[in-house]
Amino acid sequence: MSNQYDVIVVGGGPSGIVAALTAKTNNSDKSVLLVRQEKQAIVPCGIPYMFGSLDSTDKNVVADGGLTAAGVTIKIGAVVEVNAEKKTCTLSTGETCGYEKLVFATGSSPSVPSWLKGSQLKNVYIVPKNKDYLDSMIKDLEQFKKIVVVGGGFIGVEVSDELIKKGKNVTIVEQFPHLLALAFDDEFSIMIEDVLKERGLTIRCGVGVKELVGQSQVQGVLLSDGSTLDAEAVILSMGYKPNIDVAQKAGLETTKLAFIRVDEYMRTSDPHIFAVGDCAEKRDFVTRKASRLMLASVASAEARVAGMNLYRLSVVKTFGGTISIFSTAFGNHGFGSAGLIEKDAQKEGFDIVTGTFEGVDKHPGTLAGTHKQKVKLIFARESGILLGADVAGGLSTGELTNVIGLAIQNKATVNTLLTAQIGTHPLLTAPPTAYPIIKAAEAALKKMHSM
Amino acid sequence: MSNQYDVIVVGGGPSGIVAALTAKTNNSDKSVLLVRQEKQAIVPCGIPYMFGSLDSTDKNVVADGGLTAAGVTIKIGAVVEVNAEKKTCTLSTGETCGYEKLVFATGSSPSVPSWLKGSQLKNVYIVPKNKDYLDSMIKDLEQFKKIVVVGGGFIGVEVSDELIKKGKNVTIVEQFPHLLALAFDDEFSIMIEDVLKERGLTIRCGVGVKELVGQSQVQGVLLSDGSTLDAEAVILSMGYKPNIDVAQKAGLETTKLAFIRVDEYMRTSDPHIFAVGDCAEKRDFVTRKASRLMLASVASAEARVAGMNLYRLSVVKTFGGTISIFSTAFGNHGFGSAGLIEKDAQKEGFDIVTGTFEGVDKHPGTLAGTHKQKVKLIFARESGILLGADVAGGLSTGELTNVIGLAIQNKATVNTLLTAQIGTHPLLTAPPTAYPIIKAAEAALKKMHSM
Repeated sequence: MSNQYDVIVVGGGPSGIVAALTAKTNNSDKSVLLVRQEKQAIVPCGIPYMFGSLDSTDKNVVADGGLTAAGVTIKIGAVVEVNAEKKTCTLSTGETCGYEKLVFATGSSPSVPSWLKGSQLKNVYIVPKNKDYLDSMIKDLEQFKKIVVVGGGFIGVEVSDELIKKGKNVTIVEQFPHLLALAFDDEFSIMIEDVLKERGLTIRCGVGVKELVGQSQVQGVLLSDGSTLDAEAVILSMGYKPNIDVAQKAGLETTKLAFIRVDEYMRTSDPHIFAVGDCAEKRDFVTRKASRLMLASVASAEARVAGMNLYRLSVVKTFGGTISIFSTAFGNHGFGSAGLIEKDAQKEGFDIVTGTFEGVDKHPGTLAGTHKQKVKLIFARESGILLGADVAGGLSTGELTNVIGLAIQNKATVNTLLTAQIGTHPLLTAPPTAYPIIKAAEAALKKMHSM
Repeated sequence: MSNQYDVIVVGGGPSGIVAALTAKTNNSDKSVLLVRQEKQAIVPCGIPYMFGSLDSTDKNVVADGGLTAAGVTIKIGAVVEVNAEKKTCTLSTGETCGYEKLVFATGSSPSVPSWLKGSQLKNVYIVPKNKDYLDSMIKDLEQFKKIVVVGGGFIGVEVSDELIKKGKNVTIVEQFPHLLALAFDDEFSIMIEDVLKERGLTIRCGVGVKELVGQSQVQGVLLSDGSTLDAEAVILSMGYKPNIDVAQKAGLETTKLAFIRVDEYMRTSDPHIFAVGDCAEKRDFVTRKASRLMLASVASAEARVAGMNLYRLSVVKTFGGTISIFSTAFGNHGFGSAGLIEKDAQKEGFDIVTGTFEGVDKHPGTLAGTHKQKVKLIFARESGILLGADVAGGLSTGELTNVIGLAIQNKATVNTLLTAQIGTHPLLTAPPTAYPIIKAAEAALKKMHSM
């Protein structure tokens, strides 16, 4: 049957792409099909930059060349049903394809709370991973000046900063006391807020949204404190929910948090079906608790593990739990976090010690373009094991946060960090005498001793 | 006796500073004295940037505030003798100080081969870590246009690039086939050469220097191929030799390569004397062979280990061998290497597999300021253990190289890299689907399987 494939990957985002490529690379004799709904795949983390920095949304498209060159077949269409018994899936076009192994990489969709009145008004937008929707939304926004963004997570904050670059008058509303409250400890969120205020963003934290007001089109946002913000357009960035409908109907086990249940090989409850990315269950690396984290980097790591284990399980290629590693930038200011930040660790009841160091990202600090750098490390007191970190600095912050992420994954302790070897260069890093990760570890050790 | 100190650190460079600070931090009840020759300490890796990017050499000075605030006493003077039996040291001023523990952090000095005729001519310079010398040299160079730099290591190459920024006509001569040949595999050295040629540097590789010619002042450089380069000034950057005279006279054991012998706690053959930095013996992390590597980052790591072990040995705070982690930048082009590069590994007889990946340092790659990024990883075939890497990219290359350095230190394998979790962001890193370290590991694994 021409519609029989060895591997079918459902979904064309980062996890789908990586799962298909890894499946093909590791099993060159197998036929691999990737099915996705969108005509063109886009870079999900690049979506905010479609609103400003990229002069055309076409520039955020992932070309299919990599997949086709590797020998992966692509079909455009929605998978509406998977029959786990017959090992087939049916597309919205009516077409049915057979598989030996199937990978759910169905991602997530913007979630809008059902209680939010007015979310159906004209000029109220969400931020889905859909180029056609975003193209038309970005075109619409050109006519508006006054925009309210609801939700101060990464998408909300990054989209706001891009709209400001375009000269819009933007207010962001966040019910937590600070922006990016799930990713950063408060003192780092405050640094971010200061940068964004300086760049022209109006920030309303610690206040909820009651309803969106207007007749046919939105005119304002009524807040929980009774005040109203005028708005010509409203962007809702209130979180994402995993796309698990088809998996659920196929009889796969799902979790309390509504993800598809998976093990460390990314296998679902069906031995021939895997799930990866935003739709797949996550366990935190340190707390071992279920996590709601959805990140393209995590999705890609999971997809790689699935792709390598489809036909032969490999005990050295498993996914040992999710380490949340975030980074972002506004202008030349970079921010990152990894693992458990202080407030998470406290919530979990860990006995922790933190160490903070403030320095510079070049040396001597008198070199042009030097940016301040601040690293806060969170350690478990008893074992000295590194649990997490907050980072602020310049544009090397993303990779500096990755150094810390790798240290967490290796269960680094305050002592291994103190004796860590790093490379330094005047134009690229902090000085050898004051590398922030090592100095922050020193500060933490000092506190441990003085207890 | 007022001249009695608990700890005396001899030398005020990075290793001296870190040794003194760590000694004081870990032993707050002990008195710590740092003795250095120079009135003002300078940032050694910042020296090249005194020739151009820094508008005043004063901007490369390390302030003493950090030391004095920590309670370290500073004396300016040369230590001319250490009496290990009496536990005293004598300064050039005639002053004698007693110690309980002494740390040699005497660094290194430019080495000029004795066979090099003409090295005493006027307008021939070396690059010592001495602000007065450098100040007067930089002032002298203002009057010259045509400068020849002898030696294509980091100092030679970085000083050359800075002089070009100042509009000088610079030729660099290197006897190896490529610049930075000890730090990079050839294909990366060639990328560096291309960048430097583009920036205006004239490069003469694969040819030695026979002598410097001129009457009283230098007029040219005679090369081993018989040709002569005209020169108004010549800068010799032909390597550095450890400063071990005083240590040797004190009876400390030294090595074949003329370093002070040390163990993993940085103790010398005298139980009360430690040595750290450029003057202290180095063992390569992987090959376990004696190494000539002199880097401020390595020096700082060793100094930290010494400072923590002065009074109580700690088995969890030892120096497990040197990992060479280099990085540098020319304009917005960054380069780095870590551990054993391919040619080193081959020389050592390792059975290796390499994997290379070329991508971009932002995503989508259409974002303004995106730089190409290339990572080559070198693995031991049998164990899959990561031995080293070459890296090229933009200004995040320093920290990206540190991610790899930490992986080497943790004895990462091709499998642990394949399942590594990293954070990605459009403005700060490669895409999650094509993070260069992971993709290079994939490429290596593919080669391992196809053998």
